[in-house]
Amino acid sequence: MADKPSIPKGTRDFNPLEMARRNFIFDTIRKIFKTYGYLPIETPAMENLSSLMGKYGEEGDKLLFKILNSGDFKAKLDAETLHETPAGRLGVLIAEKGLRYDLTVPFARFVVQHRNDIAFPFKRYQIQPVWRADRPQRGRYREFYQCDVDVIGSHSLLNEFELMQIMDEVFTALGLKVVIKLNNRKVLAGIVEVIGEPDRMIDITVAIDKLDKIGMEKVLAELDQKGLSKQSVEKLKPVLEMEGTTSTKLTFLSGYLNQSEIGMEGLMEVDKLFGFLKDHPVDAAVEFDLTLARGLNYYTGTIFEVKSDEVQIGSICGGGRYDNLTGIFGLEGVSGVGVSFGADRIYDVLLQLERFPQEREMDTQLLFVNFGENEANYILSILRRLRSGGIASELYPDPVKMKKQMAYANNRKIPFVALVGEQEMQDGVITLKEMETGNQERLTPAELVERLSNNIS
Amino acid sequence: MADKPSIPKGTRDFNPLEMARRNFIFDTIRKIFKTYGYLPIETPAMENLSSLMGKYGEEGDKLLFKILNSGDFKAKLDAETLHETPAGRLGVLIAEKGLRYDLTVPFARFVVQHRNDIAFPFKRYQIQPVWRADRPQRGRYREFYQCDVDVIGSHSLLNEFELMQIMDEVFTALGLKVVIKLNNRKVLAGIVEVIGEPDRMIDITVAIDKLDKIGMEKVLAELDQKGLSKQSVEKLKPVLEMEGTTSTKLTFLSGYLNQSEIGMEGLMEVDKLFGFLKDHPVDAAVEFDLTLARGLNYYTGTIFEVKSDEVQIGSICGGGRYDNLTGIFGLEGVSGVGVSFGADRIYDVLLQLERFPQEREMDTQLLFVNFGENEANYILSILRRLRSGGIASELYPDPVKMKKQMAYANNRKIPFVALVGEQEMQDGVITLKEMETGNQERLTPAELVERLSNNIS
Repeated sequence: MADKPSIPKGTRDFNPLEMARRNFIFDTIRKIFKTYGYLPIETPAMENLSSLMGKYGEEGDKLLFKILNSGDFKAKLDAETLHETPAGRLGVLIAEKGLRYDLTVPFARFVVQHRNDIAFPFKRYQIQPVWRADRPQRGRYREFYQCDVDVIGSHSLLNEFELMQIMDEVFTALGLKVVIKLNNRKVLAGIVEVIGEPDRMIDITVAIDKLDKIGMEKVLAELDQKGLSKQSVEKLKPVLEMEGTTSTKLTFLSGYLNQSEIGMEGLMEVDKLFGFLKDHPVDAAVEFDLTLARGLNYYTGTIFEVKSDEVQIGSICGGGRYDNLTGIFGLEGVSGVGVSFGADRIYDVLLQLERFPQEREMDTQLLFVNFGENEANYILSILRRLRSGGIASELYPDPVKMKKQMAYANNRKIPFVALVGEQEMQDGVITLKEMETGNQERLTPAELVERLSNNIS
Repeated sequence: MADKPSIPKGTRDFNPLEMARRNFIFDTIRKIFKTYGYLPIETPAMENLSSLMGKYGEEGDKLLFKILNSGDFKAKLDAETLHETPAGRLGVLIAEKGLRYDLTVPFARFVVQHRNDIAFPFKRYQIQPVWRADRPQRGRYREFYQCDVDVIGSHSLLNEFELMQIMDEVFTALGLKVVIKLNNRKVLAGIVEVIGEPDRMIDITVAIDKLDKIGMEKVLAELDQKGLSKQSVEKLKPVLEMEGTTSTKLTFLSGYLNQSEIGMEGLMEVDKLFGFLKDHPVDAAVEFDLTLARGLNYYTGTIFEVKSDEVQIGSICGGGRYDNLTGIFGLEGVSGVGVSFGADRIYDVLLQLERFPQEREMDTQLLFVNFGENEANYILSILRRLRSGGIASELYPDPVKMKKQMAYANNRKIPFVALVGEQEMQDGVITLKEMETGNQERLTPAELVERLSNNIS
């Protein structure tokens, strides 16, 4: 026999059990998005490379999967161009399309392209795979699903709070304990303004982040090494030393940021969100976390990140407010806020904690053993009644040995097996066997439908 | 402003209304697949090109979207190779992966790769997009969805009949009148055997197919031109002249194919399926149609095709039995049968006939007008009750002019608007306005939940 076929590294097949588990996640998320009034959209797997390039930084461009132009893709290129042009630049000459890298840029493109048909504020969700030519490793795939929910065209902080409620409700429904971490880019902007280093936002958040791991002394040394003045570092020290509850931190910062307009604005936003939380508590823990610095190149206000409280894994959900996402496609001044759920990491957490529900509602409930043509023909009528009653049921297609048919029922974890032989046909009954207990009952077709309806409801 | 962004030709964005309509199709199909005991799988969008090339004929190879290797894809190629190698062959040197072209080949690959973990007979369904670099035109896209259902590992004709029941049930549930056309490759093999032209199966089915359009004389001339002997053509004539009901045709053929073992076997299979139909009738018309010749290169028995009885469009579903699909990946002798529903064509038919259901169950039922911070905060508690009762509801995020908020409700087709001002907050009530009638009622939060629960159920 030939070698076993395989699939590209970093991609996966999903078998029926994995599908049931994944759908548990997607269905839970989708249902909650809907009750909050978000509407689904989908965009093509392929986007024009011109829509994607330059949107994810230089590193991101390298991780885009490019699709070779159809036909004679090199017709217009001479030997020298083909040979001398570096692969990165040549790629763009022979590939006009690429696979989407996330759902955010296609969403921005969608909003700009269809802006005349959209009722703003536009509340949309999108659950689709994305592709990245990352080096595959445990928990990192080249094809994975994102579940994005965004509202665009409104500045109100009610949107941020709504997203916090959604994150909370999703993880509660999935049975996971999480911490929602919250930061605000304006607060960070205020801090760097106060210490007089407005361009060092990232260095400083990195420093704050490392505090727990390497200690104050080393952090200060690192900042010094990065060229921050002694004076700036001195001014930053109280922020690094800040401890206590969210409320304590906010009180401290309201004094510290006193002279920074943008800082105070950010602080007011954070304060307002915690105010909403006080009046309308959520199950998840919510923490103000100055080290949260994801997406600083496009987030302009609130930043979110969700971490599992039970499993050590990166963030399982995150997002924030962006005041100018559609600007990259020429439509300025449309503010939005959104979060993205990482379905694959959530899957890994649920699997590790064994939290997937056991029931697989729509799976086959009943297998009829096949004893031959006459019996099969008789059973087809009963099957019709069962199926129209919503009971997933099967007739084994071949009249093979009983043992083989029972093994199939076992492998498929089908809870009931029905036996209809000559005697049963004569008496107009079915012998129903419950696989777990071995109990058998003789039932009329009507009784059978009722028995199994009760079982699935 | 910059040029409006766009998407690659032949691809589409789907807005919320289109998504609701598409999901109506997918949900209907999926639900029926499940009641028959089929299980879902998914495969990656990208397959190794070696799994795809050569599986769809030479034309098919050209229609595969190839994905440029990441990194320095041309590192090992010298200038001459780059320039002199024709695009088709060079493509394979710089692209190892391709987008899946259908769901059948990935399914075969899946079965072979995971054969030790699969319980046979394996009943699977798969609903995913496929990509083809076809020239886009009305009703033909470069990205479109297929909904495949197959059972593999059983020779029983009960499987064929089950698929006919599924096709019938799906189109009945979608509210479409269809004709299920049925043929059998063995019958065709029998005919060419009888006339002594075993290698001319395709020429002869094409000839039969053209009979209606160009008439007997021209068909005979064409067969002559294609090099069939006078004797063969003479022997074929009775088949071309065959008329009447399915039953008449089968009776005629049982005489005609008398000396062909394979022909009689095929006839027996067709006969058996019509026998099942007699005992277990379906809503759709079922026709025996000798001109059905789709997929003759891999189908080995029954061939199916479904056409709309109301709209002129190509086939909207089709499939058949293949005795050696997994043979392409080295696993011989595993017989299967399956059909594929063309979701995009079904969409076009439903749209043209205006058969999409009006209700959009999970859409927002209720919009709260936003009068300001205090009211908003008060409403958040009511929203929580509504949403946990499964009622999709929203608070307009900004306290803008009433007119703008009402316009949003109109655009989104939200049936109810709720007004909560100072007076309502004092009285502990909500003023509910039904948009269609303009009727207003004052309700307590509990009454509101009940009122809207009744409305959606």
